[in-house]
Amino acid sequence: MHTSFASRMNILRASDIREILKVTQNPDMISFAGGLPAPELFPNIAIGEIAKEILQTRARTALQYSPTEGYQPLREQIAARMNALWSTRLNAEEILVTTGSQQGLDLLAKLFIDEGDAVICESPTYLGAVMAFNVFKPRWVEIATDDDGMDLKALEHALHTANRVKMMYVVPNYQNPTGRTWSTERRRGLLALAQRFTVPIIEDNPYGELIFEGDTPRAIQAMEEDGIVISLGTFSKIFCPGLRIGWIAARKPFLDRLVVLKQAADLHTSTLDQMITSVYMETHDLEKDLMQKREVYRARRDAMVSALETEMPPGVKVTHPQGGLFLWLELPEEVDARQLLRVSLDRRVAFVPGDSFFPTTQRKNTLRLNFSNMPEHRIVEGVRRLATAIKEMIVPAAAISD
Amino acid sequence: MHTSFASRMNILRASDIREILKVTQNPDMISFAGGLPAPELFPNIAIGEIAKEILQTRARTALQYSPTEGYQPLREQIAARMNALWSTRLNAEEILVTTGSQQGLDLLAKLFIDEGDAVICESPTYLGAVMAFNVFKPRWVEIATDDDGMDLKALEHALHTANRVKMMYVVPNYQNPTGRTWSTERRRGLLALAQRFTVPIIEDNPYGELIFEGDTPRAIQAMEEDGIVISLGTFSKIFCPGLRIGWIAARKPFLDRLVVLKQAADLHTSTLDQMITSVYMETHDLEKDLMQKREVYRARRDAMVSALETEMPPGVKVTHPQGGLFLWLELPEEVDARQLLRVSLDRRVAFVPGDSFFPTTQRKNTLRLNFSNMPEHRIVEGVRRLATAIKEMIVPAAAISD
Repeated sequence: MHTSFASRMNILRASDIREILKVTQNPDMISFAGGLPAPELFPNIAIGEIAKEILQTRARTALQYSPTEGYQPLREQIAARMNALWSTRLNAEEILVTTGSQQGLDLLAKLFIDEGDAVICESPTYLGAVMAFNVFKPRWVEIATDDDGMDLKALEHALHTANRVKMMYVVPNYQNPTGRTWSTERRRGLLALAQRFTVPIIEDNPYGELIFEGDTPRAIQAMEEDGIVISLGTFSKIFCPGLRIGWIAARKPFLDRLVVLKQAADLHTSTLDQMITSVYMETHDLEKDLMQKREVYRARRDAMVSALETEMPPGVKVTHPQGGLFLWLELPEEVDARQLLRVSLDRRVAFVPGDSFFPTTQRKNTLRLNFSNMPEHRIVEGVRRLATAIKEMIVPAAAISD
Repeated sequence: MHTSFASRMNILRASDIREILKVTQNPDMISFAGGLPAPELFPNIAIGEIAKEILQTRARTALQYSPTEGYQPLREQIAARMNALWSTRLNAEEILVTTGSQQGLDLLAKLFIDEGDAVICESPTYLGAVMAFNVFKPRWVEIATDDDGMDLKALEHALHTANRVKMMYVVPNYQNPTGRTWSTERRRGLLALAQRFTVPIIEDNPYGELIFEGDTPRAIQAMEEDGIVISLGTFSKIFCPGLRIGWIAARKPFLDRLVVLKQAADLHTSTLDQMITSVYMETHDLEKDLMQKREVYRARRDAMVSALETEMPPGVKVTHPQGGLFLWLELPEEVDARQLLRVSLDRRVAFVPGDSFFPTTQRKNTLRLNFSNMPEHRIVEGVRRLATAIKEMIVPAAAISD
């Protein structure tokens, strides 16, 4: 049978991470590949009690169809919490609950992107956004990015020269994949350019609350009044990812249209899971949970950074994230991270090669490491194995060039 | 601020049903507008116990990210149950768990539709499919449909003349909105044409198990081996809709691609909700629940049909569904169901005007009634109010024509 698929199917492929995660099921494997939160920190007993209570007292609501916009008490809690943490001035009607923030990306792509429209992003950028947006066949415009954020001169040049720029997608806090955080000055510069060229900013903020040290970053959405910034949030890192509860915060003209798109996409997000999240926030202290998560992840980041400092050969550059789940390695030019992955898997250590995170350029000598999902001694052992693999790959290359 | 949206936003609008449901919150209102299952039949206490148990014993799985394809035991249960009920020969690897079957429609549109591709559908057809597919700007080809299914001559003509037909979308059992069920002969004819023209059939089957009388319909997917039929299923009507658990059953070449699209859409469906559904099926008798649902809905259908027979003026045609949640009224030509809705809302009875269910044609004198969500005495009272409103609208029209 020769069925004809939509043309988008020619450019889509399964995420590398997914494929790599399949080989990391082996308990012997040390995986720095995923972005999984530590499951031992899930407040499972409390969630079980809450679920049972909801199903005893409010099951006709919890198990029935519910409004596309989201469970109203949860929308109110999200708006209030964002305003408290990030100094935004949002109300509940500006929150759309989504099936994870991944769905937020799908809905925003539908809202803005016709085939061939340009999307501006950091270089590298979040793979999940590349996948979600590619379904709508955009042109990617990658902007050179350093430890303080995008190069604003390069961004301004792109806005002058690229046609049909529909949005600028950024992860300004503890970015996936690099762990980098934008300076306040760069945030202001990005916003000024967005306003000058009337191009919305998508401020994706899944990691902002996982801060280990330094000043709390400022939300770009809190720096403006006109609504040119749309932000994405999620409970996946601060509560638990299995419930798939995320949100979009946007002004009414955007939000009303996103609701129509969400209705067509899945009608609404699980009513029960929304109610569990809402009741948990009401009856427990999410901020106290977060203190514990920050402590655990900080210790793991420290273990990874110090092992990398000890073990890595010269010529390997490492980011030093002040929060989040990931850090980023730049290897000597001659090392191809995909070849390295094959060698590493033999040594029972996994990571994600960096080239997946560049929608247009090729940066083969980079890789992403996750530090949130494993105790320190395993992290140290994993880094040791990885360093051995890298050294093996550098030596022959050097030998060839002699 | 003048932001430019994607061109699809010009054709999308909020579903009428959604808007009508907003005015039906008033407890005084009798609403035949939604498609809500009866909440008093939700097995809420059992679900609460199951949720608690899962969160005590398997929380690290239930609250964590999980595979895009779905929770493996649930995929197996769905395949086994379909094979038992519908004589399909599916295995677990041919099941993709979706966030409600509405998401299945979104994913299938992504898989098949480039702008301007043709989608063949019944006339009228399911509004949620029209909404999901319209995001991808197809051309709709409506085929005249009677009580036995599509007019196969008209279908063959359309397949000969229409360009780029990418799929045929049908709801063959107790259709939404009409309540009609296809004859076996028409199913065979549809399949033969699909095979001859190599156009996949999307067999959407949310209501097939809500049978009140007559022979069990045959699944089109069970009539063929090559995989040209892709089916959609859901737990929304047989268990509860708030958990948003649906599925797509398709052969590997389709399923593998749908997994990539789902990963981009929301990563995966709620792990907890999938596990709850799976454990419920394992520990309780879904078939026994279904017997109860069938009894309750049959009595409500009977109440509605007999009230319609008693109350409606001549010239009103009513379908007599043998299952499902809906029936369909055809009013005298001169009655516009949107005007009727305004009159009816004043009399505190709501329904969905039929024109929403025709993607291209205009059939203003039709409407859909839901009978699943209300006890019999309310149904009888609602039909009485509706009949009064219709009579009011017929009389002046007749007076004008005198």
